[in-house]
Amino acid sequence: MANTTLTISSRNYSSWSLRGWLLTKFSGLPFEEIVVPVDDPATRAELLLLSPSILVPCLAHDDVKVWDTLAIAEYLNEVKPKAALLPQEVRARAHCRSICGEMHSGFASLRSALPMNLKAHFPGFKVWARAQSDIERIVTIWRECLKEYGGPFLFGERTAADAMYAPVVTRFVTYDVQLDPHIAEYGERIMALPEMREWIALARQEVEEIDELDVEF
Amino acid sequence: MANTTLTISSRNYSSWSLRGWLLTKFSGLPFEEIVVPVDDPATRAELLLLSPSILVPCLAHDDVKVWDTLAIAEYLNEVKPKAALLPQEVRARAHCRSICGEMHSGFASLRSALPMNLKAHFPGFKVWARAQSDIERIVTIWRECLKEYGGPFLFGERTAADAMYAPVVTRFVTYDVQLDPHIAEYGERIMALPEMREWIALARQEVEEIDELDVEF
Repeated sequence: MANTTLTISSRNYSSWSLRGWLLTKFSGLPFEEIVVPVDDPATRAELLLLSPSILVPCLAHDDVKVWDTLAIAEYLNEVKPKAALLPQEVRARAHCRSICGEMHSGFASLRSALPMNLKAHFPGFKVWARAQSDIERIVTIWRECLKEYGGPFLFGERTAADAMYAPVVTRFVTYDVQLDPHIAEYGERIMALPEMREWIALARQEVEEIDELDVEF
Repeated sequence: MANTTLTISSRNYSSWSLRGWLLTKFSGLPFEEIVVPVDDPATRAELLLLSPSILVPCLAHDDVKVWDTLAIAEYLNEVKPKAALLPQEVRARAHCRSICGEMHSGFASLRSALPMNLKAHFPGFKVWARAQSDIERIVTIWRECLKEYGGPFLFGERTAADAMYAPVVTRFVTYDVQLDPHIAEYGERIMALPEMREWIALARQEVEEIDELDVEF
């Protein structure tokens, strides 16, 4: 068996860790976890700011090291093609990569205003205007996918896109974001995935707390 | 011939347009350009902020639409495999995708403090500390690649990674960033590419000007 590790940080706060972990779980590639503490400066920067760090998530598979979430998705799709992390049909695959890319580089307002925090729940949370625009764009993306590919997941079967958007699903729960029933059902489907339940159960046991989640720049 | 268009915005200011355009040029796929004006609100947001919009760059190839820069790279690599936008060797390919991903989602301080502006030149520009960290990380990425793969480009032959980092090369010129000779030579090599010369010549003819490039959030 290949020597495979996935480096992650906080299960409660690190949305990039969750994405990388879900992708690897979905691929079926067995792996061991390496958890870096949240007080590591680079990890903290990843949690406080908007983009992944080179530390997490990081997949090491024999002598191959991949340290970006989308690069991990593409790598796993090559190594485990039967897991179909990307849709088989060329047009759907381009669509899937486009919305994964949007999640990867965009939605900065949503990320800073509604940081992932699986333990928390804020009923009636007031969403500011820019984050609301991000929410609307995400709902549009989901609606178009569910309509075009017929569900139950964004591209019919489960793909990398569901892993990329899974942290957003948890944010909608945490911050009590009101959604149309059809969209809310998609979120419930993601929350009910056994991998998500496993991750969230472990997040609830985490003892580290971060005092301040203000975005500084 | 396929009906292929690439939507871009300002040649002078839009780093994402440059990336998408270079990728498509490198692929050898013939295409027509659609230029959206910089006073379009979504385009303006893309120029002022840090991430690509869904408007630019956007590649339409027959009935396939791809609107994210990395998704465009992956799509073109599938459609034009001989162009070798990604390295052939699995480890190098994972490495290439990782650093493309870093550029795609990271370096927010560099992007906001040193926005792309091909017409401008600021000798002795003072770089603030966070942007300096981004510069150092980019130089490390380039140094490791040039050492490991032997140059002249990041992965030996020209790949998507050179297109992804090309706007940074122009920023180092515009803002007079001092670099080690070996790293500076890589930048000169990118600036000397016929595609870059073509893009920059057209950027210099652009009449639109943006008054204010302050990042607002």
